Amino acid sequence: MLINCAAYQNGSKLGDIPVAEISEYVTRPECFVWVALFDPTVDEMAEMAEEFGLHPLAVEDAHKGHQRPKIEEYDDSLFVVLHTLESVPDAPDSPLATGEVDIFVGPNYILSVRHRTQKGFNDVRIRCEREPALLRYGSGFVLYALMDNVVDRYFPILEALESELEQIEGNIFVRNTARSNIESLYALKQKLMLLTHAVDPLMEATGKLYGGRVPPVCAGMGEYFRDVYDHLHRIHATIDGIRDMLTTAIQVNLGMISLADSEVTKKLAAWAAIIAVPTMMAGIYGMNFEHMPELEWTFGYPLAIATMVAVDLFLYVRFKKTRWL
Amino acid sequence: MLINCAAYQNGSKLGDIPVAEISEYVTRPECFVWVALFDPTVDEMAEMAEEFGLHPLAVEDAHKGHQRPKIEEYDDSLFVVLHTLESVPDAPDSPLATGEVDIFVGPNYILSVRHRTQKGFNDVRIRCEREPALLRYGSGFVLYALMDNVVDRYFPILEALESELEQIEGNIFVRNTARSNIESLYALKQKLMLLTHAVDPLMEATGKLYGGRVPPVCAGMGEYFRDVYDHLHRIHATIDGIRDMLTTAIQVNLGMISLADSEVTKKLAAWAAIIAVPTMMAGIYGMNFEHMPELEWTFGYPLAIATMVAVDLFLYVRFKKTRWL
Amino acid sequence: MLINCAAYQNGSKLGDIPVAEISEYVTRPECFVWVALFDPTVDEMAEMAEEFGLHPLAVEDAHKGHQRPKIEEYDDSLFVVLHTLESVPDAPDSPLATGEVDIFVGPNYILSVRHRTQKGFNDVRIRCEREPALLRYGSGFVLYALMDNVVDRYFPILEALESELEQIEGNIFVRNTARSNIESLYALKQKLMLLTHAVDPLMEATGKLYGGRVPPVCAGMGEYFRDVYDHLHRIHATIDGIRDMLTTAIQVNLGMISLADSEVTKKLAAWAAIIAVPTMMAGIYGMNFEHMPELEWTFGYPLAIATMVAVDLFLYVRFKKTRWL
Amino acid sequence: MLINCAAYQNGSKLGDIPVAEISEYVTRPECFVWVALFDPTVDEMAEMAEEFGLHPLAVEDAHKGHQRPKIEEYDDSLFVVLHTLESVPDAPDSPLATGEVDIFVGPNYILSVRHRTQKGFNDVRIRCEREPALLRYGSGFVLYALMDNVVDRYFPILEALESELEQIEGNIFVRNTARSNIESLYALKQKLMLLTHAVDPLMEATGKLYGGRVPPVCAGMGEYFRDVYDHLHRIHATIDGIRDMLTTAIQVNLGMISLADSEVTKKLAAWAAIIAVPTMMAGIYGMNFEHMPELEWTFGYPLAIATMVAVDLFLYVRFKKTRWL
Amino acid sequence: MLINCAAYQNGSKLGDIPVAEISEYVTRPECFVWVALFDPTVDEMAEMAEEFGLHPLAVEDAHKGHQRPKIEEYDDSLFVVLHTLESVPDAPDSPLATGEVDIFVGPNYILSVRHRTQKGFNDVRIRCEREPALLRYGSGFVLYALMDNVVDRYFPILEALESELEQIEGNIFVRNTARSNIESLYALKQKLMLLTHAVDPLMEATGKLYGGRVPPVCAGMGEYFRDVYDHLHRIHATIDGIRDMLTTAIQVNLGMISLADSEVTKKLAAWAAIIAVPTMMAGIYGMNFEHMPELEWTFGYPLAIATMVAVDLFLYVRFKKTRWL
Repeated sequence: MLINCAAYQNGSKLGDIPVAEISEYVTRPECFVWVALFDPTVDEMAEMAEEFGLHPLAVEDAHKGHQRPKIEEYDDSLFVVLHTLESVPDAPDSPLATGEVDIFVGPNYILSVRHRTQKGFNDVRIRCEREPALLRYGSGFVLYALMDNVVDRYFPILEALESELEQIEGNIFVRNTARSNIESLYALKQKLMLLTHAVDPLMEATGKLYGGRVPPVCAGMGEYFRDVYDHLHRIHATIDGIRDMLTTAIQVNLGMISLADSEVTKKLAAWAAIIAVPTMMAGIYGMNFEHMPELEWTFGYPLAIATMVAVDLFLYVRFKKTRWL
Repeated sequence: MLINCAAYQNGSKLGDIPVAEISEYVTRPECFVWVALFDPTVDEMAEMAEEFGLHPLAVEDAHKGHQRPKIEEYDDSLFVVLHTLESVPDAPDSPLATGEVDIFVGPNYILSVRHRTQKGFNDVRIRCEREPALLRYGSGFVLYALMDNVVDRYFPILEALESELEQIEGNIFVRNTARSNIESLYALKQKLMLLTHAVDPLMEATGKLYGGRVPPVCAGMGEYFRDVYDHLHRIHATIDGIRDMLTTAIQVNLGMISLADSEVTKKLAAWAAIIAVPTMMAGIYGMNFEHMPELEWTFGYPLAIATMVAVDLFLYVRFKKTRWL
Repeated sequence: MLINCAAYQNGSKLGDIPVAEISEYVTRPECFVWVALFDPTVDEMAEMAEEFGLHPLAVEDAHKGHQRPKIEEYDDSLFVVLHTLESVPDAPDSPLATGEVDIFVGPNYILSVRHRTQKGFNDVRIRCEREPALLRYGSGFVLYALMDNVVDRYFPILEALESELEQIEGNIFVRNTARSNIESLYALKQKLMLLTHAVDPLMEATGKLYGGRVPPVCAGMGEYFRDVYDHLHRIHATIDGIRDMLTTAIQVNLGMISLADSEVTKKLAAWAAIIAVPTMMAGIYGMNFEHMPELEWTFGYPLAIATMVAVDLFLYVRFKKTRWL
Repeated sequence: MLINCAAYQNGSKLGDIPVAEISEYVTRPECFVWVALFDPTVDEMAEMAEEFGLHPLAVEDAHKGHQRPKIEEYDDSLFVVLHTLESVPDAPDSPLATGEVDIFVGPNYILSVRHRTQKGFNDVRIRCEREPALLRYGSGFVLYALMDNVVDRYFPILEALESELEQIEGNIFVRNTARSNIESLYALKQKLMLLTHAVDPLMEATGKLYGGRVPPVCAGMGEYFRDVYDHLHRIHATIDGIRDMLTTAIQVNLGMISLADSEVTKKLAAWAAIIAVPTMMAGIYGMNFEHMPELEWTFGYPLAIATMVAVDLFLYVRFKKTRWL
Repeated sequence: MLINCAAYQNGSKLGDIPVAEISEYVTRPECFVWVALFDPTVDEMAEMAEEFGLHPLAVEDAHKGHQRPKIEEYDDSLFVVLHTLESVPDAPDSPLATGEVDIFVGPNYILSVRHRTQKGFNDVRIRCEREPALLRYGSGFVLYALMDNVVDRYFPILEALESELEQIEGNIFVRNTARSNIESLYALKQKLMLLTHAVDPLMEATGKLYGGRVPPVCAGMGEYFRDVYDHLHRIHATIDGIRDMLTTAIQVNLGMISLADSEVTKKLAAWAAIIAVPTMMAGIYGMNFEHMPELEWTFGYPLAIATMVAVDLFLYVRFKKTRWL
C-alpha cells in the first residue's frame, strides 16, 4: 500500500508526485524522491524496483521479509533492514510483536517499506520538513532520521524490560514466589532475545556509516550516524547488563528454592519429633505387662500426659531456637 | 557414480560430453565444464584429478571425506567443502543425517562431489540454465548457486529446531514434564551442534569471498557471495539465540525439578501430620492406666473421634491456606 | 546553577568573569575559560551553547542526561560524559547513587555540567591553580584533572565492594547463613553492575586519548591520559575478578544449601529411627494375644524398657559415628 | 639415545653418517642432515648444539622439557615443540600419557628430540624417502611430515573421546547411573584438557607458517602447513563441541539426580501413607474406652481389616495414577 | 632501605658507589648503574628520582604501591611493575602473600624497588655478573634477568596449585568429603585469582617488548623477552586449564552432594518401611475387638512375631537389591 510519495528540492517539499513520474524526478540534480510503502504487493514492489532501478537481490530480500537487521551497499545505494518492536498492550503478558522496515537509499531517492509494523513514520516526515537546513543533505539525512526514529522506539521497550527485572528482583527473596519468579525471568529472557536480535546486527552495521570510509550517501553526516550508533551501543550495553543480572537472578532463585525446600524439611522433621515422642510414650504405657507399677498410681495418667506436654514444650522451644520452626 | 557432465559456453549449455573429453573443453576460452559426482570410486576421482589437474591435497581430502566445512585456495582454483544436513523422517526422534559436498572450482570447470547426501543439485542446474545472463559469469556463478542451495537447505532444519524449542518452552512450566523436557533439551542441543559444525566454519570462510582481495574465480560476484554470507550469519545468530535460550531453559528446568521436589516434600509433611496426630491421640487412649476418667464416659469414644476429626480438619484447612496441600 | 566561571592565561587565573563575557575571552590566544554548572536550567544551557558555540547534538545529550559514559569528538572540541557513584551513607544497605558529569572541552574553554552529583570539583580547581606549569597546557590539562578526579572517586567504592565480598566469603561456610549470604551476593552484584556501567565504556573511550592519533585538545598529554586509562583498567580488572569470585561464591553457596539440606535429612532420619524402634517394640507388647509369656514375667516391663534404651543408645552412638547426628 | 643420523641430497639419502661429521655435511649446499634422538643425555644434547650451532635458549628449553607446544624463530632456524598423547592400553581407565617432541630446523638440518613418547618417527622417514620430489624441499618438508604425523596421531585419541561421550550420553537418562556418569564425565573432561593443551597453542603457532610472511625454512610449502593447520583447527572445533556438550551433560546429569531424588521422596511419601493409615485405624480400635460399640460386633474385626485393605487399595491405585509409585 | 648500588661497565662491575655519585656515572657512556631498594622511605625515593631524573607519574605510582603489573614507556625509559607471590609456610592453610617490585629502567640505569617481598634479587645480581657477555647489553639485560627471575618464581606457586587441584580431584568422588572439597575448591580459586592478577597484565605488557617496534632499552634482546612472554603464556594457559577444571569440579561436587542427599533419603525411606510395617501389624493385634480368633491361638504370638520378621527380611533383601540400603 502506498503511504506517501513526494519530491524534495534544496530541503523543501516540491509536492506529492504520482508513482509513474518518480524516474523523472530521480534524475533531476539537487532533487530527491521519498516514498513510503506499507505491506506492498508484489506488483507495487516491482514498480518501485523499476522506477528506482533497485538491485534484484535487495528487492528479493525486501519481498521475502524476515531479514536480519543489516546495511548493505550496492554500488552507490544502500539497502537497510531494521526491526521494529511493538508491545501489544491488550494481549495478556504483553508480548512483543516484531516488525520490519526495509529502506532503499540512493543519491536521489529514499524508499521505506514497512512490514508488520503498526506505527508509521509520519513524525519523521514532519520533523524533516521542519528542518530544511538539514533536509538539504538529501536522502542521507532522511535515512538518519528514519534510523534515529526506529532506534528511539527501542528505549521504552528497554525501560519496560528494566522495570520488569526490578520488579522480579523485588520478589526474588520473598517466600513462595519462586515459581512465578522463574516464569517471569524466562519470559523476560525471551523478550530480551528479541531486542538483542534487533539491536546487535544493526549496531555492527551502523558502525560502518561513520569514521573511515563511509558510503557516499551518508557522507558528511558522520556525527549523526555516530549518534545513532551511540544509542544502539547504549541499548546493547544495557541489554548485556540485564542479561547478566538475569543469569544471576535465575541462579539465586534456584538457591532460594533449595533453601525453601530445606526449611520445609526442617519443619517436617521438627513436627514429626513433637508428634512421635508422645506417641512412643503412649505406646509404652499401652503395653500389656502384668507388672507395670505406674499404671496403678492414682495420678499415673495425668503425670504421663504432663510429661508428654513437658517434653513437647521442651522440643518446641529448642526447635524455635535453632530456627527449625 | 557420475551424475552429470556437461560443457557450457557464453551462458548456455553446449551439451553433455564424455568424461574423456573434459581436458579438451577445459582449455577452450569462454567455456567451462560442470561435472557432478555422487559417492565416487577411487578410480573415478583419479580420472577427474587427471582431467582437471586437481591439487593432490584437495583430492586426498575429498577422497577421505569427513572434512570440516572450508574454502581453500590452490593457485587459481578453489576447494570448497560443505556439510549437508538432512532429517530422516522415518526414523524415530527424527535425527539429522550429515552429508558432505566437496566442490572443486577452477576458471574453466566446476566439479561437485556428493557424499552421504540424498538430495542432488538438479534444481541448481535447471536454475542456472534458465539464467544465461548470470551463467555467463562462468564457474564462479555455479559455485555461488551451489553454495546458495546448500545454505538454503539449512533454513528448514533451523526452523524445525526453533519450533522444537518453542514446543519445549510451552511444556517447561507444566508439572510432571521435567524428565521429558530435559531429554528433549539435550536432543535439541545435539542437533544444534551438528548445525553449528556445518555453518560456523563455512561462514568464516565465505567472508573471504567478497570485500577486499577475493579469489579470481569469484571476482565480480561479491554481492552474491555476501548474500550467502548474510544467510549464514543469520543462521549463526539464530543458533546463538537458540543455544542461549536452551542453556537458560535447562537451568529453569532444574529449578522446576527442585520446586516439584519441594512440593512433594510439603505434601508428604502435611499428610504425615494429618495422620500422625490422630494416631498419637489413639495411642494415648490406648494406655492401660487404671485411672483414666475419659475412658468411662459414655460419650468418650465419639468425643475422641470427633476431636480427631476436628484437629485434622483444622490442619487440612491450614495446610490448604499455606499451599502445602 | 552556575558554580564557577573563570578565565585563565599562561597557567594562572585572570579572575572570575561574567557569563556574558565568555565569548570574548574564548577568542583571546593563550587564554581559556573554565565554567562549572550544577543541574543547569534549559536557559543556562542555551546560554552556554551560544557563548561557547557548542554542537547541538552534544548539548541535547547533556540536556537529556542519562547518557552512557563516552568521549565524542566534534571538530576541534570534545564532549565527555562521566558517571559518578556516591554511596548514600544514611540509607539502609548503603546503596549507590549514580550521577553524571558532562564536560565540553574546546581549545579555549572547558565547561563541566554536574547532574545528581553531591560532591563538586573545587578540589580540582584548587589543585590546578597550584600547578601553573601544568595548567599552561590549557583546557586539555583541566580535562585530565577532572577525569582523574572522577576516576579516583571510584577507588573507595571499589574497595568497599571488595571488603563486602571478603565479609561474605568469611560467612559462606558458616552454617545457617545461606539466606543472608545469597541476598548479600545479589546486592553486591547489583552494585558491581553500576560500577561496570561507569567504568567500561569510559575505559574504551579513554584509550583513544593517547597513543596513535589523539584529539588536538589532548595533544602532548598522552602520558597523563594513559595514567587515567591505567587506573580505569585496574578497576576493570578488579571488577572482573570480583565478578568471577562472585559467580563461584553463588555456586558454592548453592552447594552449602544442598549440604545443609542433606544434613537436616540425616538428622531427621536418625531421630526418626531412635523414636520409631521403641514405638514398634511397645506396639508389640501392646498386642492382645492371650499367650504372651513375657507379659507375665515379673521383670518383663523393666526389661522391655531397658532393651528400648539399649537399642536407642546403640543407634545414637552409631549415628554419631557416621556423622548423621 | 641416538636413533638415526643421515644426510640427504636432492631428495635422496646419501647414507647414515657419524655424529662428528654433521657439521661438515651441514655446510654443503643442497644437502641436509636429519637426526633423531630419544631421551638424550646432557652430553648428547651438548654435542648436537655444537654440531648444529643451536640457540642456547632453545637448547635449554629442549633440555628441561615440559614446554608448551610452540614454534619459535631464531634467525634462520625454527624451534618447534609438539606434545604427543598416547593411550596406555593396559592401565585401568586407559589414561593418556603426555610426551614431547622438540624439533630444531635450520636450512640444512632437522633434529628431532623425543621425550616420554613410545612411538618413533620411522614411518615418517620411510614416507619421506619414498617421495624424493617432495624431499627435495629439504628440511622444511621433513618438518611438515613430522608435524603432520604428530597431528594425525591426535585423531584416534579424539575419536576415542567422542565415542566415550556418546557412550555416556547413552547412559545419561538411564536410572541409577548418575554416579558413574558424573565420574565418567569428569574423567572425559580431564582427558579433553590434555588434548586442548597439546592442540591449541600449536594451532596458533602453525597459523604463522603460511599466508603472509613465513619463516624462510617453510617457504614455498604454505599449502602443506595450511593443511596441518586445517587438521588442528578441525580437532580444536571438535574439542570445543565435546566440551560444550559435556558442560550441558553435567548440568543435565545434575537434573537427573534431582529428578531421581524427587522420585524417591514421592515413593517414600506414598508408602508412608499406605502404612500409616491402617496404623492409625488400628490405634483407634486399640483405645480402651468402655463404650465402643464396634468392638462388640461379631464381624467388627474382619470389617476393620477389610476397611484398612480397601483404603490402602484406594491409595495404591491413586498413587499409581499420579505416578508417585 | 638501600640494598645495593653499583656501577657496571662493559659487562663487568666497577664497584659499589655512593648514592650521591649516581648522576655522575649515569652520564658516562657504556656505563650503567644498578640500584636496589627495599621498602624505601619518601626521602630515599625522592633522592633516586632526582639522581636518575625519573618521571613524576612513575615515581608517584612506585611510592603509592598497589599498582597492577604493567610496563610503561616514558620517553627513553621504562617503568615496570611486577607482582611477587610468596607462600607463607608457617601460616595455616598456606595463603599467598602478594608483594610488588617496581623497576625503573633507562639507557644507563636500572632501579628496582621491592615492596612487601621477602626474597631479594641477589641471585640475579650474581647470575648477571657471571655472564659479562650478556651484561654488556646493559640495563636491558638486567631488566630481562629481573623479570625472568620474578616469573620463574611463579612456577612453584603454580605447581602447588596444580597438586592442590589433583588432591581435591582425588577426593571429589569419595563419600562425605563434599564440605571439605567445596571449601578447598573455593580457597584454590582465591589463590588462582591472585596469580591471574599477577600474570595476565604482565603477559599483555611483555608482548610489546619483542616483535615489531620495541622500546630502545630492550632493543636486540627480543628473543630473551619472548622467552619471558612464553613462560607467562604457559602459566596463563595452565591457570586457564585449572580454572576450567575447577568450575567443572564445583559443579560435579554439587552433583555429588545431591547424590549423597538422595542416598540418605533412600536409606531413610527403607528403614522407615522396615520399622513401620511391624508397628502396623502390632497395632492391628493391639485392637480391642472382642472377636479376634488369632489372639486366642496358642501360637498366635510367635506366629505374629515370625510374620513380622519374615516381612522385614523380605523388605531388607529387596532394598539391598535395589540399592536403597
